[in-house]
Amino acid sequence: MAVIVHQVARPQGWPVAEQFAYLDVPTPAPGPGQALVENLYLSVDPYMRERMDVDELGVPLEGRSIGQVVHSRDLLLSVGDLVLHRHGWRSHALVTHQEVRVLPVVPGLSLTTYLSVLGGTGLSAYVGLTRVAQLRTGETVFVSAAGGGVGSAAGQIARLLGAKRVIGSTGSAAKAEYLTSELGFDAAIDYTAGDLPGRLAAEAPDGIDVYLDNVGGGHLEAAIGALRPRGRIAWCGAVGQYNSVMPPAAPRNLFDIVEKQIRLEGFLVRDYKYLQTELEGFLVPYLQAGRVLAPETIVEGLPNMVDAFLSMLGGGNTGKMIVKV
Amino acid sequence: MAVIVHQVARPQGWPVAEQFAYLDVPTPAPGPGQALVENLYLSVDPYMRERMDVDELGVPLEGRSIGQVVHSRDLLLSVGDLVLHRHGWRSHALVTHQEVRVLPVVPGLSLTTYLSVLGGTGLSAYVGLTRVAQLRTGETVFVSAAGGGVGSAAGQIARLLGAKRVIGSTGSAAKAEYLTSELGFDAAIDYTAGDLPGRLAAEAPDGIDVYLDNVGGGHLEAAIGALRPRGRIAWCGAVGQYNSVMPPAAPRNLFDIVEKQIRLEGFLVRDYKYLQTELEGFLVPYLQAGRVLAPETIVEGLPNMVDAFLSMLGGGNTGKMIVKV
Repeated sequence: MAVIVHQVARPQGWPVAEQFAYLDVPTPAPGPGQALVENLYLSVDPYMRERMDVDELGVPLEGRSIGQVVHSRDLLLSVGDLVLHRHGWRSHALVTHQEVRVLPVVPGLSLTTYLSVLGGTGLSAYVGLTRVAQLRTGETVFVSAAGGGVGSAAGQIARLLGAKRVIGSTGSAAKAEYLTSELGFDAAIDYTAGDLPGRLAAEAPDGIDVYLDNVGGGHLEAAIGALRPRGRIAWCGAVGQYNSVMPPAAPRNLFDIVEKQIRLEGFLVRDYKYLQTELEGFLVPYLQAGRVLAPETIVEGLPNMVDAFLSMLGGGNTGKMIVKV
Repeated sequence: MAVIVHQVARPQGWPVAEQFAYLDVPTPAPGPGQALVENLYLSVDPYMRERMDVDELGVPLEGRSIGQVVHSRDLLLSVGDLVLHRHGWRSHALVTHQEVRVLPVVPGLSLTTYLSVLGGTGLSAYVGLTRVAQLRTGETVFVSAAGGGVGSAAGQIARLLGAKRVIGSTGSAAKAEYLTSELGFDAAIDYTAGDLPGRLAAEAPDGIDVYLDNVGGGHLEAAIGALRPRGRIAWCGAVGQYNSVMPPAAPRNLFDIVEKQIRLEGFLVRDYKYLQTELEGFLVPYLQAGRVLAPETIVEGLPNMVDAFLSMLGGGNTGKMIVKV
């Protein structure tokens, strides 16, 4: 038997478990040209909350996944191949070789790395810093949601790219401690303790040059306030707004963008897949040398997929949230 | 005798005439290395409203001006030289050759052009389109405050740069008519008639690629709504906000910047003076051929300087506002 997770209702604001259903179904049999994959790891991402508002009901949400081929009628896929694909939220999937990437076995790399720092999460951080914000050596970088998948990757990548000072914001004192003690952030702010603008100013008395925004709202306003002239904001998401029924509060200091000649640019990582090879060329040696960590929160068991998703939306993860099937 | 206009009080919201005073003073005598200039034309600009909040009281506001040297003790300036300088809001000024530009006499060009399309006004439009928004051939451009100095230049420059469609927004039906009949805009919207988002969508059914923003507020929100993916906003001012005591309303659709991968960049023309030569090389032949107009509202008489300034803030000008001393 196989298990599949459907979205069965739309959320109003924060999603709840009842909007999903676990179904036991017969394990699908591959048709000609197809292969059956047994999923090993499922990616759990903030963007899935957005998909809940628009995707078809009565089917699984899209999600990246790593699985192993267990039966193949695709000449180009062999039993045992480890593949990266987009049929998440289920225990088994039918794929063709056109829609998967066969993963290499790289010494010193865990498989899940391809869902975290070598996946869309790490690519978002890399693209945001190198292409959108165009970070330069010696600059000061501020990262929101720094304990999350994108943020934890961004802080480490910024340091490798030559940032002088890397400051993260996160939702608990424990995560803040983790950022500075384990991930090499120079400073970390627990924003739940209040006065984010004041504490950002204290940690960056000369201002910041680059802000990687995952959050929007008050963080965006604080960053605009702290940015130096010609500062850049790479904006890849607004986790804090996905569950809001009201239009989000926009920054009151938006006009500072003119006064300080700030560049605010949104980006979607799906348009930057062409940089995947560059990302791996850059990061794999650092990962093998232990100079970059791939922090992951791995939840065991497909029956906990929905709980893992809801926990991630509430900031319950440190690093990339992954479900081990 | 000379006349000088002082700012004597700070505005709360909209400025009023009583915040200025006209003073009759002795005509200043140039010291060694100085020249006396009799001002001919004074520039009247929106940015002066911002200076009213911060500049010293009891002196004139900064302002660009064109004058003629009438007495010189600077070896490098001769009586009769026409010079561009920054000592506005007065009938006479003392200058040195280091702080002026001696203007050429170019056939077919009026002197005031150096305050309008060849001045900071035209340079703002040119920089916003070429450097900030990076306009490409075949794109659709939207310009706010299109009847003003920057906007009227921007619409014409966008066309010369190969824009497929140029749409302007302005504050009266008469100005809208002028934009399309005289300045070559493809469409013009009188925003005072309401429903700017709907009418912008009607004029640009496939969306816009570039927005040159002089206004902020509701115009910025409408433009974000109309922008196509990878659209760019060059933001050089927010006339609508200068007189506001409250923080301006920020666009409710700001998060579309992520979804559509929009780039919003503020700029200050003073940082782009190095492009002045490029601007003149580009525009002078078109001006001489009559293919670019330099719309100007010229108010006669220095005693009308304050009225001209207040009128400009209320949109009373078409094209660049200038006072003829």
